[in-house]
Amino acid sequence: MDTVLRSRSKTVTIGAEQPFCIIGERINPTGRQTFAEELREGNLETVTQDALGQVQAGADMLDVNAGIPLVDEPELLKSMLRTAQEAVDVPICIDSSVVEALEAGLSIYEGRALVNSVTAEDERLEQILPLVARHDAAVIGLANDETGIPETPEKRLECAQRIVTAAQEHGIAASDVIIDPLAMTVGADTEAVTTALRTISLIRDELGVNMCLGASNVSFGLPQRHVLNAAFLPMAMAAGLTSAIMSTAEVCVASVRASDLLLGHDPWGANWIAAHRARQAAAKEPAATA
Amino acid sequence: MDTVLRSRSKTVTIGAEQPFCIIGERINPTGRQTFAEELREGNLETVTQDALGQVQAGADMLDVNAGIPLVDEPELLKSMLRTAQEAVDVPICIDSSVVEALEAGLSIYEGRALVNSVTAEDERLEQILPLVARHDAAVIGLANDETGIPETPEKRLECAQRIVTAAQEHGIAASDVIIDPLAMTVGADTEAVTTALRTISLIRDELGVNMCLGASNVSFGLPQRHVLNAAFLPMAMAAGLTSAIMSTAEVCVASVRASDLLLGHDPWGANWIAAHRARQAAAKEPAATA
Repeated sequence: MDTVLRSRSKTVTIGAEQPFCIIGERINPTGRQTFAEELREGNLETVTQDALGQVQAGADMLDVNAGIPLVDEPELLKSMLRTAQEAVDVPICIDSSVVEALEAGLSIYEGRALVNSVTAEDERLEQILPLVARHDAAVIGLANDETGIPETPEKRLECAQRIVTAAQEHGIAASDVIIDPLAMTVGADTEAVTTALRTISLIRDELGVNMCLGASNVSFGLPQRHVLNAAFLPMAMAAGLTSAIMSTAEVCVASVRASDLLLGHDPWGANWIAAHRARQAAAKEPAATA
Repeated sequence: MDTVLRSRSKTVTIGAEQPFCIIGERINPTGRQTFAEELREGNLETVTQDALGQVQAGADMLDVNAGIPLVDEPELLKSMLRTAQEAVDVPICIDSSVVEALEAGLSIYEGRALVNSVTAEDERLEQILPLVARHDAAVIGLANDETGIPETPEKRLECAQRIVTAAQEHGIAASDVIIDPLAMTVGADTEAVTTALRTISLIRDELGVNMCLGASNVSFGLPQRHVLNAAFLPMAMAAGLTSAIMSTAEVCVASVRASDLLLGHDPWGANWIAAHRARQAAAKEPAATA
């Protein structure tokens, strides 16, 4: 089941037989105080830098979030999306918990966006799915409901199923619903990762839809987070995860591309070998021009 | 089910609830021409260096192999084992396809060794299992038989089952049989890794025994092998692999220890955080003594 997303001129396909879709996590002021201050002052330079930097580092898509307390989030999100779209030509994941912000973002987005996110809560489903349908977008559905985040994979599957069904009632195909199986922090719950992995396999086997999660959550509060994230991603990919909102640190991107090869999504290592040669050529360049 | 191995004074326990057991792969002349030449000349310096280096890098055990064409393999293996045992105090995996070499190695090994390996071939089982039983050792059983390496996980499980049964008939407990599910080269077969992963889950679910494989095989012939191996290990660990004969390159060891944490085998990251602090302290040391 493939999910097709578009920027102005580029198409990205997320699917179980495709290379993994890396969605850059950086353009988000949560936990980035300096960036939040800049955004409050209307300074969007970091948006441009982070858009360019993440695509350069290997991002297939970018997440854009404008969640700062007490700002006009719809307006800020529009400015950030315009800036990101000017800087790079990759599809964008429009990320907000505010319905009006999602609507504002969709109104100026050029292409086919991914809306981040809806939950299995009735009210959220009724607010967000009509928007997604009207703009012919795809949507991330978090596997939680009014009662919070279910502890068991089976309950998370029920939430996912409810979202897929509600989407279909709004004319949105199951292939345009990407479920977030929810990866919590292993520093707070030693079973957080094993629960996430079992949820991923279960959703793959029962629903067959695409999945996306915030991969950096698992390592919150621990040292050497990139190394932990880089180990988590191969596990999640082997279980059936097809995309992640994640760091584009070199160790994380390399881990994903290595896993693509290992899992047969980069036949005979064509992409892996091409990337290796490009790096070798780039490393030689300064000497050649000197 | 725990497998307990011992050196002169150290005990290593391999098990599904234990941190992963890293068995250093370096002390093996296969594909190392200079090392092979040194060994032919009776120069064992590299054995000492590789023993120290791998344990320093994080190896819990060492594999020792003396397989050079036309040498007296039993004698050479004894010398290498003596040298390795003098250099470091970790349990050793005595690695040979020659029964007399395994016997010679076991005769001078101090502790409880791991014998590498037997297959599901009747003749090999009859030759090697009595040796293992007599020396109260544990044994690695390769999941292949007279017909070669089975393509399907189900056939590999049958081989594994046959080895466990034969071992029990020789008085060797299932907990002292470590099955090698066989990881082949992904550069030669795009399904090599997915087949290995399904075999690992199946053997975990059906037999519950410990498993060990040569993790570097998967990346043979490809660039950036350590990065590929470092991505393969988390997948294999999540599927149920409990040990590997592997490179102790930093990226590989870090990937294993990160996976231990993620899979709940390093509760609250105690080992991970301690290793991080030790690295920080080591990095500061030259400055402090300057």
